[in-house]
Amino acid sequence: MKFSPLIDELIDAFKVLPGVGPKSAQRMAFQLLERNRSGALKLSQILHDAMEHVQHCGSCRTFTEAEICEICSSAKRAESRQLCVVESPQDIVAIEQTAEFKGRYFVLMGHLSPIDGIGPNEIGLHILDKRLASNAYDEVILATNPTVEGEATAHYIAQMCKSYDLQATRIAHGVPVGGELEYIDGNTLSHAFSGRRSL
Amino acid sequence: MKFSPLIDELIDAFKVLPGVGPKSAQRMAFQLLERNRSGALKLSQILHDAMEHVQHCGSCRTFTEAEICEICSSAKRAESRQLCVVESPQDIVAIEQTAEFKGRYFVLMGHLSPIDGIGPNEIGLHILDKRLASNAYDEVILATNPTVEGEATAHYIAQMCKSYDLQATRIAHGVPVGGELEYIDGNTLSHAFSGRRSL
Ligand SMILES: [Zn+2]
Ligand SMILES: [Zn+2]
Repeated sequence: MKFSPLIDELIDAFKVLPGVGPKSAQRMAFQLLERNRSGALKLSQILHDAMEHVQHCGSCRTFTEAEICEICSSAKRAESRQLCVVESPQDIVAIEQTAEFKGRYFVLMGHLSPIDGIGPNEIGLHILDKRLASNAYDEVILATNPTVEGEATAHYIAQMCKSYDLQATRIAHGVPVGGELEYIDGNTLSHAFSGRRSL
Repeated sequence: MKFSPLIDELIDAFKVLPGVGPKSAQRMAFQLLERNRSGALKLSQILHDAMEHVQHCGSCRTFTEAEICEICSSAKRAESRQLCVVESPQDIVAIEQTAEFKGRYFVLMGHLSPIDGIGPNEIGLHILDKRLASNAYDEVILATNPTVEGEATAHYIAQMCKSYDLQATRIAHGVPVGGELEYIDGNTLSHAFSGRRSL
């Protein structure tokens, strides 16, 4: 024991947070005790509520406390016959910020990774399969990450689309806008070349 | 709104933690939702309990959920007629780890800082005064930080001790053990010279 039993427990509990070691955990405990007990009580309450009530959207699998998330509930969104497949809820936010896409999403909550025991069912592809079969879409945009696992996952889903005669497209890889060629990795650069278009 | 209302609230609530900005708050929320809900619920519970029950020790002012902290409750500690004055509960832990001191503590929970409106009462010197008057001590060791405010606070308390004919001592400043002279700041080095002792 270093401090009182309850303070030691609090410091220890903070270590569940990513990037928080013993020193930051101790700083968090004392800063809240000394300066912001009401903020800490609010965090305690919301943390409890979120862990109890946030589940997966019944339609797209993103995190939400509602049965069906806001995007999936929107009638306007249903008019678009496009479905965008992403790895995480954070990817939806990034795409929404571009205002480029007006369709619906499907969130894998990960990617295929056989080594880690993550197969099709673990990323909800049995649920995606039902949506593909629903005849609600003309195009499935595969927006998984441009990593080895993300590419493999995209190809797996493209095969699923084929069996329903659904067009599957992959977002373009290339030089980021504003990026300088000399700082771009070779893999990205070769994608940029092979994906070149006439002007 | 970026995510669902509850998730947005959770991300926002994490920002009460020191050193946590929007990006880390978002990472914390999703990591707990995806991988450690039981750890998060435990953090929520302990955070609540600590904010509700941790108060100041009635004797030394350190943080504790007990009326009187463990050190102040120890009969063995009372045998020593030394009192060590520190700025924070963390300082007690540092001193306890040296096993150098066997007396009791008084925790200021800060230092005198007139500019910030922190005067003698704000750091509990009216409570310390009663302890000095109790005739329980032969020596008061001033272990405030070697900063301008820490020094000023030590001198103020030394004056209080004088009125009770109590010996006040200040911990030594000098070159840290294992430190290399060339990397020590000039102020510390002049303390090391003026505090030199014959061998
Ligand atoms: Zn949804
Ligand atoms: Zn105490």
